[in-house]
Amino acid sequence: MSFPTPKRVTLLGSTGSIGTQALDVMRAHPGKFTVTALSAQSNAELLIQQAREFRPAAVVIGDEAKYPTVKAALAGQSETEVLTGPAALADVAGRDDTDVVLTAMVGYAGLLPTVRAIRAGKTIALANKETLVVAGQLITDLVKEYGVGLYPVDSEHSAIFQCLVGEEQNPIEKIILTASGGPFRGRTREQLALVTKAQALKHPNWDMGAKITIDSASLMNKGLEVIEAKWLFGLRDDQIEVIVHPQSIIHSLVQFEDGSLKAQLGLPDMKLPIQYALGYPQRLPSQFPRFRFLDYPQLTFEQPDTDTFRNLALAFEAMRRGGNAPCVLNAANEVAVAAFLRDEIGFLEMSEVVETSLARVSYLAAPSLEDYVQTDLETRRVAQELTGARA
Amino acid sequence: MSFPTPKRVTLLGSTGSIGTQALDVMRAHPGKFTVTALSAQSNAELLIQQAREFRPAAVVIGDEAKYPTVKAALAGQSETEVLTGPAALADVAGRDDTDVVLTAMVGYAGLLPTVRAIRAGKTIALANKETLVVAGQLITDLVKEYGVGLYPVDSEHSAIFQCLVGEEQNPIEKIILTASGGPFRGRTREQLALVTKAQALKHPNWDMGAKITIDSASLMNKGLEVIEAKWLFGLRDDQIEVIVHPQSIIHSLVQFEDGSLKAQLGLPDMKLPIQYALGYPQRLPSQFPRFRFLDYPQLTFEQPDTDTFRNLALAFEAMRRGGNAPCVLNAANEVAVAAFLRDEIGFLEMSEVVETSLARVSYLAAPSLEDYVQTDLETRRVAQELTGARA
Repeated sequence: MSFPTPKRVTLLGSTGSIGTQALDVMRAHPGKFTVTALSAQSNAELLIQQAREFRPAAVVIGDEAKYPTVKAALAGQSETEVLTGPAALADVAGRDDTDVVLTAMVGYAGLLPTVRAIRAGKTIALANKETLVVAGQLITDLVKEYGVGLYPVDSEHSAIFQCLVGEEQNPIEKIILTASGGPFRGRTREQLALVTKAQALKHPNWDMGAKITIDSASLMNKGLEVIEAKWLFGLRDDQIEVIVHPQSIIHSLVQFEDGSLKAQLGLPDMKLPIQYALGYPQRLPSQFPRFRFLDYPQLTFEQPDTDTFRNLALAFEAMRRGGNAPCVLNAANEVAVAAFLRDEIGFLEMSEVVETSLARVSYLAAPSLEDYVQTDLETRRVAQELTGARA
Repeated sequence: MSFPTPKRVTLLGSTGSIGTQALDVMRAHPGKFTVTALSAQSNAELLIQQAREFRPAAVVIGDEAKYPTVKAALAGQSETEVLTGPAALADVAGRDDTDVVLTAMVGYAGLLPTVRAIRAGKTIALANKETLVVAGQLITDLVKEYGVGLYPVDSEHSAIFQCLVGEEQNPIEKIILTASGGPFRGRTREQLALVTKAQALKHPNWDMGAKITIDSASLMNKGLEVIEAKWLFGLRDDQIEVIVHPQSIIHSLVQFEDGSLKAQLGLPDMKLPIQYALGYPQRLPSQFPRFRFLDYPQLTFEQPDTDTFRNLALAFEAMRRGGNAPCVLNAANEVAVAAFLRDEIGFLEMSEVVETSLARVSYLAAPSLEDYVQTDLETRRVAQELTGARA
């Protein structure tokens, strides 16, 4: 895949943690990138500011109530079209005048725009892991059919992707995803029952959005990453392991059939995997702070406690079941996390919502795109009932 | 570089630690390799046994006194020519009927056969680090001129080499060579003055030949590896760091200009880098024991103590001086290690012999191959005087 310079980037989810850092990366490399389109769900103010700086051909504000504000603010910027609604999001993802679509929106909402971008032949820089969790088979089939590049932005998957360059002829024996263990590593279920939203939002190593931070505390994030990895790297379920590594320095590892392991390491900083996905296959010089062993004289590793952190076990189970089970897992979790963030359910109840939803929603072995949409809707109904009952 | 199958291998130094493990690797992959020639310095018995099993076109026994024994033992094996002497070693290194020359002999003796192999267009699997230490500029110039592959077998350099596949377009920012620290890590100079040969020969992680085991205990091995790495990877002196990592699991690391680090890991087992160099770019499946984080819950790192282990500082100094200084370093060290192994000098005196030799032997900024030969001879005279005086 070769690109023109500057590379033209469509950034979906530009006001979130990944989105703003992606713009930092592009700012740091003048002349290397231009922004074709920006989208945000609700942060109109920041979206307007970004549009004024990067002057994209289009901006999409998801929240239709905020459309007039954005439209008015950018009225004098004739090169920028202002759009709203889910159809608009998919439309900008497939525009002719873009090369790479960075999918940095949160949750299931990433699926349809990603499908559109692949069908339009765009390279995908995938920060929205839910896309592959929900519909991994469908997405990877489409990626093959349209021959597009799919480059992971998640730090763990970027690590593995970096370790695989030049190894195309060498089969993977297994991968090992590292997990920080989150803020509650070592706690018992009794202790977990009492943790607050504020505690769960304090991640020890990574500065991220609220949804992924809660998922990190509950190990659901690692569970979603396991499923994402299966599809990204074409693995069998038994080729994926998780190890807890509290310092988050080794971002993940690949083991080949000769027994050799390769790992990618660095300080926990999402800018690096974002930049790698945008610049791939070129590594752009950076001023990011460098890792020093002097500051990390010990790197430690332990088995994840899946009895306490049930979500990781549930994710492995959903992966093994396949079909629409990971879609159920994801939708139930989105509802559960939202309820936890509204203080409607406790920390441990999030897993219960997921587990019960997995039991209740009808299983489909080979879902179509429409089946996924229906599974997502049905699961949200079931999960909302479950969380409502606990409110 | 593409090879016929089976790949035809000439193995120089077949009875040593690397040599016997290389034959193990080839035994484990029937049909992948044939042996064109074997050489040994003095272990006639094992050489004969190997020749009977692998039926090479030629064997070279370095010790001329043992030639009649080998010749007689292989008299009935008409396809195998039996040779002796240094000229024979260089001759087999350049034979037409071989693809890869694995240089696994010990010390300076590797230089001339390696030069001959390169000039004959052979791919070099380099286990003899002294070749690059002594004459790095000359060897790398020749490698470029003849367009041959030079694949490292040292585990640290193999680690870096493995991390660099697919990264050809991405400049190296620095490399970090890991060092076990050897059996005397943490000792004071007062304690080191009293250590015995038997203690120095007990390496905590690696099972290797006597010379390299002593070099590991004195950190000269790491010093030689620093210089080897400079030439193998085309680095400036300030792009090479050493970190002590007592578990020897991370075999070395590369940092790129985006700040990302890649590492290769595994249990300490020389068969893996040997197999990688012989199979490159293909990773052959192996039954080698696998690394498990469960067995290594902590990986630790510390700065090397170059005040106590002077050899590492001397090697960096010789590298910075350049010219024939690394050749002096290496020759003086070979003499000093031999004297230590004969109980003629103490452990700390090895560094003194090297340091004094570096001061006494005339410096040449741009030595020819003949200059290296002369520098090696002159240094051995100087160093032998120094060790003799202490005997």
